[in-house]
Amino acid sequence: KMLRRVLCTVLFVGALPSPAQASQGHISVVLLGATGDLAKKYLWQGLFQLYMDQVSGGHSFTFHGAALAALEPGQRLMFDVLKKLSCPPDEAPNRCAVLKDQFLKLSQYHQLKTAENYTALNRDIETLLRQEGLKEAGRIFYFSVPPFAYTEIARHINSSCRPPAGAWLRVVLEKPFGHDLQSAQQLAAELAGFFREDEMYRVDHYLGKQAVAHILPFRDQNRQFLDPIWNQHHVERVEVVLKETVDAKGRTSFYEQYGVVRDVLQNHLTEALMFLIMELPANVSSAHDVVQHKLQALRSLWGLERSSAVLGQYQAYDSQVQEELQEARGYVSTTPTFAGVLIRSDSLRWDGVPFLLTSGKALDERVGYARVLFKNRAYCTQSGTLRDAGHSQCKPKQIIFYFGHGALNTPAVLVSRNLFQPVMPKDSWKQAEARSDLHIFGQPLSDFHMYSPVKERDAYSVLISNIYHGRKDFFITTENLLASWAFWTPLLDSTSRQPPRLYPGGVENQHLLDFEMVSGGVAFTLAEPAELLNPSGQMPSDFRAMQSKFRQSPLVSAWAEDLISQLASDMEEAAVRSVARSGQFHLALSGGSSPVVLFQRLARHHYGFPWQHTHVWLVDERCVPLTDGESNFLGLHRHLLQRVRVPYFNIHPMPVHLNRRLCVEEDQGAELYAKDIVALVANASFDLVLLGVGTDGHTASLFPRSDTGLEGAPTVVLTESPVKPHRRMSLSLPLINRARQVFVLVLGKGKHDITTLLSRVGHEPRKWPISGVSPSSGQLVWYVDYEALLG
Amino acid sequence: KMLRRVLCTVLFVGALPSPAQASQGHISVVLLGATGDLAKKYLWQGLFQLYMDQVSGGHSFTFHGAALAALEPGQRLMFDVLKKLSCPPDEAPNRCAVLKDQFLKLSQYHQLKTAENYTALNRDIETLLRQEGLKEAGRIFYFSVPPFAYTEIARHINSSCRPPAGAWLRVVLEKPFGHDLQSAQQLAAELAGFFREDEMYRVDHYLGKQAVAHILPFRDQNRQFLDPIWNQHHVERVEVVLKETVDAKGRTSFYEQYGVVRDVLQNHLTEALMFLIMELPANVSSAHDVVQHKLQALRSLWGLERSSAVLGQYQAYDSQVQEELQEARGYVSTTPTFAGVLIRSDSLRWDGVPFLLTSGKALDERVGYARVLFKNRAYCTQSGTLRDAGHSQCKPKQIIFYFGHGALNTPAVLVSRNLFQPVMPKDSWKQAEARSDLHIFGQPLSDFHMYSPVKERDAYSVLISNIYHGRKDFFITTENLLASWAFWTPLLDSTSRQPPRLYPGGVENQHLLDFEMVSGGVAFTLAEPAELLNPSGQMPSDFRAMQSKFRQSPLVSAWAEDLISQLASDMEEAAVRSVARSGQFHLALSGGSSPVVLFQRLARHHYGFPWQHTHVWLVDERCVPLTDGESNFLGLHRHLLQRVRVPYFNIHPMPVHLNRRLCVEEDQGAELYAKDIVALVANASFDLVLLGVGTDGHTASLFPRSDTGLEGAPTVVLTESPVKPHRRMSLSLPLINRARQVFVLVLGKGKHDITTLLSRVGHEPRKWPISGVSPSSGQLVWYVDYEALLG
Repeated sequence: KMLRRVLCTVLFVGALPSPAQASQGHISVVLLGATGDLAKKYLWQGLFQLYMDQVSGGHSFTFHGAALAALEPGQRLMFDVLKKLSCPPDEAPNRCAVLKDQFLKLSQYHQLKTAENYTALNRDIETLLRQEGLKEAGRIFYFSVPPFAYTEIARHINSSCRPPAGAWLRVVLEKPFGHDLQSAQQLAAELAGFFREDEMYRVDHYLGKQAVAHILPFRDQNRQFLDPIWNQHHVERVEVVLKETVDAKGRTSFYEQYGVVRDVLQNHLTEALMFLIMELPANVSSAHDVVQHKLQALRSLWGLERSSAVLGQYQAYDSQVQEELQEARGYVSTTPTFAGVLIRSDSLRWDGVPFLLTSGKALDERVGYARVLFKNRAYCTQSGTLRDAGHSQCKPKQIIFYFGHGALNTPAVLVSRNLFQPVMPKDSWKQAEARSDLHIFGQPLSDFHMYSPVKERDAYSVLISNIYHGRKDFFITTENLLASWAFWTPLLDSTSRQPPRLYPGGVENQHLLDFEMVSGGVAFTLAEPAELLNPSGQMPSDFRAMQSKFRQSPLVSAWAEDLISQLASDMEEAAVRSVARSGQFHLALSGGSSPVVLFQRLARHHYGFPWQHTHVWLVDERCVPLTDGESNFLGLHRHLLQRVRVPYFNIHPMPVHLNRRLCVEEDQGAELYAKDIVALVANASFDLVLLGVGTDGHTASLFPRSDTGLEGAPTVVLTESPVKPHRRMSLSLPLINRARQVFVLVLGKGKHDITTLLSRVGHEPRKWPISGVSPSSGQLVWYVDYEALLG
Repeated sequence: KMLRRVLCTVLFVGALPSPAQASQGHISVVLLGATGDLAKKYLWQGLFQLYMDQVSGGHSFTFHGAALAALEPGQRLMFDVLKKLSCPPDEAPNRCAVLKDQFLKLSQYHQLKTAENYTALNRDIETLLRQEGLKEAGRIFYFSVPPFAYTEIARHINSSCRPPAGAWLRVVLEKPFGHDLQSAQQLAAELAGFFREDEMYRVDHYLGKQAVAHILPFRDQNRQFLDPIWNQHHVERVEVVLKETVDAKGRTSFYEQYGVVRDVLQNHLTEALMFLIMELPANVSSAHDVVQHKLQALRSLWGLERSSAVLGQYQAYDSQVQEELQEARGYVSTTPTFAGVLIRSDSLRWDGVPFLLTSGKALDERVGYARVLFKNRAYCTQSGTLRDAGHSQCKPKQIIFYFGHGALNTPAVLVSRNLFQPVMPKDSWKQAEARSDLHIFGQPLSDFHMYSPVKERDAYSVLISNIYHGRKDFFITTENLLASWAFWTPLLDSTSRQPPRLYPGGVENQHLLDFEMVSGGVAFTLAEPAELLNPSGQMPSDFRAMQSKFRQSPLVSAWAEDLISQLASDMEEAAVRSVARSGQFHLALSGGSSPVVLFQRLARHHYGFPWQHTHVWLVDERCVPLTDGESNFLGLHRHLLQRVRVPYFNIHPMPVHLNRRLCVEEDQGAELYAKDIVALVANASFDLVLLGVGTDGHTASLFPRSDTGLEGAPTVVLTESPVKPHRRMSLSLPLINRARQVFVLVLGKGKHDITTLLSRVGHEPRKWPISGVSPSSGQLVWYVDYEALLG
């Protein structure tokens, strides 16, 4: 009845749907958490905006607020909110007043607590539709509730509130979506039990911010200018920054669990970065293509390491936590409130370009932006005094998507005048005045073409409109979410015990939070000032790598990441020494998963490694084609060789695929490899052999309970592995033992048992081949991480 | 007698050599061209300075001015110069006056015109030495004469004026040393007939400029700061600049023959650049090591191409030439008076770092410097207003060797304060006041540690002192000279017909001479303004590549450089198309010298080439190890593969060295290669085959008068070449003819005859194998340069 009444009223206002248009069907919007903060601040206003925009679009609407509170008080609370809905400045006051009145009439409160409540809601919707003779178009359920309630609500909606066939269901979810990869996977799996992927709309409200939402359209509409310069040869760096002046006071119960990385970087800043660096789909209005390209960009990022980030915490944070969470006086939090992170991509387009993500609370200003800074490729022959505003090619060139606040106090798109005048959609972005009194990034504003929105729109209004339009590219897909968590979780894990740098807050921070890119990572520019030293510094990861003995040979032990960096440095040192001595460095490498991190470290951090003079040999290989996913060489190639400059001739994959067949005896691959070694490696003595250890005590491809390759001449042998692929090629123990240096790398809890065993047994290569490693005149060093050593 | 008298006088002055010290021997300095401009302005003063510095150093001296003029007038002219010699401000006036008097007495004029004159000079020196009872230490002959006179004088000195055994001879030569590689080689060969390499001191007076001379000591003394940052990862660019306000007026007879590249870049700026980029010898005072390292650095530079430089000419130049050289009114000179050149090095240290050399006349200021600009690797979290002077890591970081003039008006070494405080020798360099009112390179001077010389010394004084000390590293060795000409000559040749951009001169030049790095080269930033267009623009090199037919197939023809760039673009286009179609690009490449330029162009200019998806095959190979200098693959690797990222698996060298032996039939290398092709290349149809043509009409390794590989199955064959190494492996003609596209590249005058022949003959592969190239369903395109086409 209510709806019919409204529809009648509506007909008097004009510019409203004819019954024919309204036949596109009815949409029910259910806002769960209808009286919460977010609903009060943004969501009801967004729904009202949707109504104003779409009232004449052919759909009819009803709006259902829902919460745990009983009908009476809930209703009262909700209508208090609705009465305060405001009319946007660009809306005719009369029309708005009428529409607001209708909107209120179309809105209803429901208590949603029990299964019965949900059944009742469903019944109400069905009844209404029947009474009005309306076809159902779809239902939107907006979850503005804490994530612990998700599963319960999802179950009820799925079992009681699904629309009939032919109408769609859209559930809108608000973050947080887990707090690391595992919890996100769990939550995703639970939700997948109730909703299809296409039914879920995960909100990251940054995707609704006008400057962020315009990144892709901008790239699309300015392809002619951007195509030649949107790559490593022209871009110097990309920065995505969100600086806040406020601190976490009053929110520490949430913040203490999350910190700045989970709160801002994992979602908002990562999303903005992806829009900048993803390959641009031919059709940017294809949500599918956008989502896929974004996912590809996310997956192309280099793994984060502890050294990828600098973390800080404003000084008052600890006492705020103590107060709000009733922690003891001495409580020390390691939750970061500031982070600067260096991200790199694997794609050729962005090879070598640093992406810097920065966010923090209690900083000197409130501002957010994504900024692409271009390289200066010009030489200006005439002296500086002659350079006129904006046009000299020697001035910085940049494109800035300004999210808001800061000096400009508006969302904006800025393009340096010495770059190009961008194409901008005139109906939604207007050129702003070139004020030269205002400076931004060290340049007067008059150096830029600046555009701001014709109509400033709140992010939630934008997103609610996109939910209505089914634009999934404005939301986070499950794949996208998990890829992002997969990317961020290693950093969160490796820094969780690390004390952040303390900073006073505000302008007093001065240079304390400046950071620099150093050898593949970032570090604060200023040394830790003594008066701010964190009192708790006694974390195992702070210890230097431990030096000791294992099986009578030197042992280096540390947490995995430190161990790898020590090993990589030792390898570089060995290489440099060897090249100085003989002009060459013969390095034999093992396959498997442990060395992957080592290879990455060598490729990314050791620019001084004499690759040009290094010969790379394989310790062992599986009898599969070199391009097979199982091939040791493929892993080596992917993680190391394709990133450094080893001459083609110096790369020596094992010949397991001669005459296009695998390890056939008569092809004599093993003999051939041995001959190559004798021909190229002086005295068949490798400068360095890197080995691993299997849980069964195997090393190289020498397996327990076989004599092959354990004794006799230094040679190359074909062996049998107990696991697939069975056929292997391997250096023999006598050949390994001729090396000048042998490093054995052992990583992870899974290796604890064999490590313990090896610490006790003697020379029994037939039981444990690794125990036969004992260089006749060379040096053996064990690199064992704490997890393998201590369990 | 004169000498004895002076020696007596000297004893009264004190601080002068005791007879024991003087027993180190006598040095005769002969200045040829004693009354010329350079002698007047610098050389006599330099010799006087040498005398003042060394008078108590143990050697005795006589100074012999020489010229073509007869004794009387010559003497008069020379003593007019000597009388005007000035006392340096740091010398006690009394001592200087006495020493000047002595210097005049020790100086003598000689007419040196005929062979007898030289014999007489030699006799004079011998007589004097005998009379004074002095042992001869050595003779310095300073050639301050035009280069055409060098050979004649050198011959006389060699035959008549060599000192006796045990004493050294040093001949000092002033530039120009030729005007291209060939003329420099010729001059060097002539001089080598008269002097040993260690006897020759070629002057580049920039090596005597204090700021230039201090580059190596600075790098040596600041190793601890510079070692980590003196490389591609930290250096953004290197600039070496000499700007002049004067023009060539009055000197056009010289300048019109040389131009700015020969006058300034080939020598002065190149030398300064080498000091910056050469590997630093462990011992920088070893002249031998310095010279060798500098040579290595010179040889590591990428070859220059026409696109490596922008050239300009000030507008008044033509009329000055017309006037001074009595040229006709319409005379148009293409001699550049401005050049900006982009140089790159092949060394890993400098990979990707642009070196910009710039010099010009009639510019807005007079200044010279060598500047190393470092990358900004910092992110400054707090806003710009807080950045205090000099210390923010976000301010530019640079090291500048300031040659003189300009805003500072003194030689100087400047190091940004946010870099480090350099170690400087206190006796020769003093810290200058930090004036913040003066700006340099966009920063207040107070942002730098600035040092200026304690005692400003003229370059010639420095050099004359170094000749005396035998410091060959302050001079240009023959190898060094020829390497420099070898580097610059291709640019001079390729730009000789190119009209330079005209510029008005002085501040009016504004942005007209600004230039930018674009796709591997440089180009002026502003389009040629209509009112300044060069009237003569009708050079063949300005024509676009010519499109026509050759042997019924498309022909592309142009000057070699344009042809190569067209071919490279066409190859990239073919590659992109093929990858879009099939995900792969199978490219078969020929060896030989013609493709080298093509390979370099592909590696340096074609960033968009889909190398990751390209398979590289060989068209033919010599039966030598892959690492042999004769190997086609080695050339391909050196010029292309080691610069781009082709996956290891996609690189297919021909198996000419199976089982460590060369092309043995029973190893079945050819069959193996054919099998690989069949396995990987769909339908054994390469996407693109690049061929060349020999003067005998051979192509691939298919030679005339043999049937091998001309007909039958598409396969790989072993063939015999008429020239060494005889054994070859080659794709057969039927295999080549299966390709989708075949490009044939023909370059150079040497190919004119075969080109002409081929344009007439039909399909006769047994006589001319290239005539059998005729893709069955693919496309054949000929790329023939003008020299091959037109002779």
